[in-house]
Amino acid sequence: MKIGFAQINTVVGDLNGNYEKIRRAYHQAVEQGADLVITPELAITGYPPQDLVFKSRFVPLNLEILDRLHGDVGAIPLVTGFVDYNPAPTGRHFRNSAAWLQRNRPIEKIHKSLLPTYDVFDEARYFEPAEETKPIEFNGKKIGVTICEDIWTKEYLPRRLYAQDPLGSLINQGAELILNLSASPFNIGKPGLRFEMLSGLARKHGLPIFYCNLIGGNDQLVFDGNSLAIDAAGKLIAQLPSFTEQITVVNPDIQNSIPQTPEFATDSADLFHALSLGVRDYLEKCGFKSAVIGLSGGIDSAVTAAIAVDALGAAQVLGVAMPTRFSSQGSIDDAVALSEKLGIRCLQIPIQKSFETVRSQFAGLFSGLPEDTTEENIQPRLRAATLMAISNKFSHLLLTTGNKSELAVGYCTIYGDMAGGLAVISDVPKTKIYELARWINRDREIIPINTITKPPSAELKPDQTDQDTLPPYDLLDEILHLYVEENLGVRDIVNKGYDEKTVRWIQRRVDLNEYKREQAAPGLKVTSRAFGIGRRMPIAQRFVE
Amino acid sequence: MKIGFAQINTVVGDLNGNYEKIRRAYHQAVEQGADLVITPELAITGYPPQDLVFKSRFVPLNLEILDRLHGDVGAIPLVTGFVDYNPAPTGRHFRNSAAWLQRNRPIEKIHKSLLPTYDVFDEARYFEPAEETKPIEFNGKKIGVTICEDIWTKEYLPRRLYAQDPLGSLINQGAELILNLSASPFNIGKPGLRFEMLSGLARKHGLPIFYCNLIGGNDQLVFDGNSLAIDAAGKLIAQLPSFTEQITVVNPDIQNSIPQTPEFATDSADLFHALSLGVRDYLEKCGFKSAVIGLSGGIDSAVTAAIAVDALGAAQVLGVAMPTRFSSQGSIDDAVALSEKLGIRCLQIPIQKSFETVRSQFAGLFSGLPEDTTEENIQPRLRAATLMAISNKFSHLLLTTGNKSELAVGYCTIYGDMAGGLAVISDVPKTKIYELARWINRDREIIPINTITKPPSAELKPDQTDQDTLPPYDLLDEILHLYVEENLGVRDIVNKGYDEKTVRWIQRRVDLNEYKREQAAPGLKVTSRAFGIGRRMPIAQRFVE
Repeated sequence: MKIGFAQINTVVGDLNGNYEKIRRAYHQAVEQGADLVITPELAITGYPPQDLVFKSRFVPLNLEILDRLHGDVGAIPLVTGFVDYNPAPTGRHFRNSAAWLQRNRPIEKIHKSLLPTYDVFDEARYFEPAEETKPIEFNGKKIGVTICEDIWTKEYLPRRLYAQDPLGSLINQGAELILNLSASPFNIGKPGLRFEMLSGLARKHGLPIFYCNLIGGNDQLVFDGNSLAIDAAGKLIAQLPSFTEQITVVNPDIQNSIPQTPEFATDSADLFHALSLGVRDYLEKCGFKSAVIGLSGGIDSAVTAAIAVDALGAAQVLGVAMPTRFSSQGSIDDAVALSEKLGIRCLQIPIQKSFETVRSQFAGLFSGLPEDTTEENIQPRLRAATLMAISNKFSHLLLTTGNKSELAVGYCTIYGDMAGGLAVISDVPKTKIYELARWINRDREIIPINTITKPPSAELKPDQTDQDTLPPYDLLDEILHLYVEENLGVRDIVNKGYDEKTVRWIQRRVDLNEYKREQAAPGLKVTSRAFGIGRRMPIAQRFVE
Repeated sequence: MKIGFAQINTVVGDLNGNYEKIRRAYHQAVEQGADLVITPELAITGYPPQDLVFKSRFVPLNLEILDRLHGDVGAIPLVTGFVDYNPAPTGRHFRNSAAWLQRNRPIEKIHKSLLPTYDVFDEARYFEPAEETKPIEFNGKKIGVTICEDIWTKEYLPRRLYAQDPLGSLINQGAELILNLSASPFNIGKPGLRFEMLSGLARKHGLPIFYCNLIGGNDQLVFDGNSLAIDAAGKLIAQLPSFTEQITVVNPDIQNSIPQTPEFATDSADLFHALSLGVRDYLEKCGFKSAVIGLSGGIDSAVTAAIAVDALGAAQVLGVAMPTRFSSQGSIDDAVALSEKLGIRCLQIPIQKSFETVRSQFAGLFSGLPEDTTEENIQPRLRAATLMAISNKFSHLLLTTGNKSELAVGYCTIYGDMAGGLAVISDVPKTKIYELARWINRDREIIPINTITKPPSAELKPDQTDQDTLPPYDLLDEILHLYVEENLGVRDIVNKGYDEKTVRWIQRRVDLNEYKREQAAPGLKVTSRAFGIGRRMPIAQRFVE
């Protein structure tokens, strides 16, 4: 049986656009000889639809689209995702569902059994789990249709979360092959993990698995595609590309004879392409064509600009250098050199005079008080006002350039360098930013070497460097990983051999700066735990262990 | 049996502080003659602990506190709330639990059965529901211990969400009275609703109910207390005060003989006290002592300042007027008059010169282009930079003054008037702001009459009024209520008789401005649906129906 994969990029809430995309992909796969076509999870609504499902017209219109698709298909079935009503009087109002659509056959519906409600997922907010799930008969075969989490086994989850076992149930009922409609967001290492899990499952149960994943950026989430076809021995039959749409028909009988190994990019390559797709799709899906970026001459803004150029094209990216008297000539030169290498326009708008004028507002009020971060913070806030004026006037989306390490400890100014519509690298720790910069420069110097080698500095007062305030970045990133991603307490981190004073300083800074992150621009998630929708911390709280 | 109510104000994550508070309240109630003492839900951890429960030391330390409390109590039982582990290998890792603590008796644990996972609640993210719940025997009586949602019946929920019926099960097992440990957030009308529900339940089942609710502000949520004791006929035995801590012992035998009616304040009074408590607790729990507010002379900042003065005292509130040449003398006079009436200090820091200097940065870049909102937005952004400098220098928390109507349609400037640590009135529609202002002025003029009667204006260009851009506020608020709180689609609102063009304009503005709200200051929730954690909308989305 030849399986058509519609690895498409849906838009959340764009029911008509998604309809067209599914319909075209279906016909294309059928023309390529598919016997059956599958799409990602919730393809009709886009994923995740979030609270849109509560809108009075949302689910009814998505059901109309489902009927329209049913009218479009021929004898070759299409299996796609939609939001169904839960007809029972009790429980959540909706289902996360798949539909088997085939001419002259009533729509058959399959509901998701395992509803992720952790990290970035909120499915128990909306959906009632399936009570049972049955294989679908087609061409004399029993086909098990599953939706994303349904096939994730406990080893790959935060813990054994579910009592149900939809895959086991389908196999007990004689399922001979498994389809999975997925919307599995990218993080570093995830594509390889998925292959490992699916391959293990196929081998364990002696069944082929056809796994169709979403691609595209949706706010903080980037879906990488990387759809997989795996044979009953756990071997790879076919792998669809990452970070791009593709319609592919997989013929297990032919392809099975060719031994294949999965191909996964390096972490830096994956990271770059994930961020680039996240930027491109956020702008496109929000209706923006171009971006503006503040260029400091430092590595964060340089990496952000390189990603933006890849995503949008050099002509659609505007750099702006906004020096004060604390800015070194070297920094301005680095910003200019970067712009030349990227081929983007770079404006120079000094803010020194504005800085002096705003400071003069406080001549009386602050008189006799020592200078402190107050005066430092005025500078990034004036840069934000400057960049936002350019954004407002020319409809360029402002991209934020802060990294995860500084966002974690609050080494950033709210309404200043944190301002922007999308935070491109806010889930990338500083040490990984350096790796990314070297990867960007792998063939030729795009990011000026000086930007990479000089000590990082905010340049908000004379002779400042990040390391005046922060622990060395490699140490900071290790401890942040344990504290933020692993949720280890201070004592548990110290027990691993880290200096208690440093750990306590980091704990305090991370917790105190929750209020800044509450107002941060949405950031692209690329690690297993990002700040943003997947980490929900109270602001007014006093836990310090 | 005399029931001691410990209606206390816990702090999220402050395990030791909450321990002291519970212990003291217990002893106080025992001294007042209680036979049994109850606290709010999750009193040991504070509510809601959110992702703090995932921290490696959080649940273990809360269990240590539970043991410590067990060691403190005497023969009079204490029933309090904590986070337990789920010992089963499958399911969520934790339980939302209550403990029956009594000397010479092992700790008895009761787990919450109904876990709200809608609006602001995320309990299915953390907790596994109870499989069963049993009455506890005490002094020859069977006592049913329930936790918050466990007693909420389907008529008062978004829909019949749960298959379980913990209250029915307890009654079937012979429960003779019901205790409920609650953390039920305030919204307008909720206190009366709770009485209606509890009274109906008591009457239906012929059982007394003792309902102990949390008081205090925790980020976006304000808990109002209003704990209730209700007899088996559904009549009120006792009502604890709203918005304040109180330890009260209720003797049903005596108090039952006195017919009582519940006393609920007017909407405006409740609203004012809820917001005041929200401000006071946010500052106190975050470690701030004082606040700064930008005073425009308009009604929003006037109402916000009046609330802040009630919450913090006049000496702890600083007003700042920041006129440009578009500010009328009347507005400055109104800001000064308000400050005098409130007894707060008012600084005048004109920003006209800064505005001109920042504008001059763009003399070349914007040359030949018409003026638009770009130039308007520079003004609130300079005001934000000014207020944040004062906040940074003097550690005053900046309070944001925007109302719900303008936040809904984006009639506000991101990084400008939206800047601040807490948005005091961001869940209050403009029409209710006027009601609140009149209530504040009920005894004497605090908010200048001119502030209430003049047409609202942002004063960002000559002769501007809100109604140049927005529909009349009474119409806007009606449609916003249907669109945002009721989730009605455009067609459904038009079918109620509203003008389609106006409805479409509002729908478009609300949806387009999701990106601003994503970065808004946390706002105090006082309606059934606020922007913030209880409304989760995608930004990059295209649903327009």
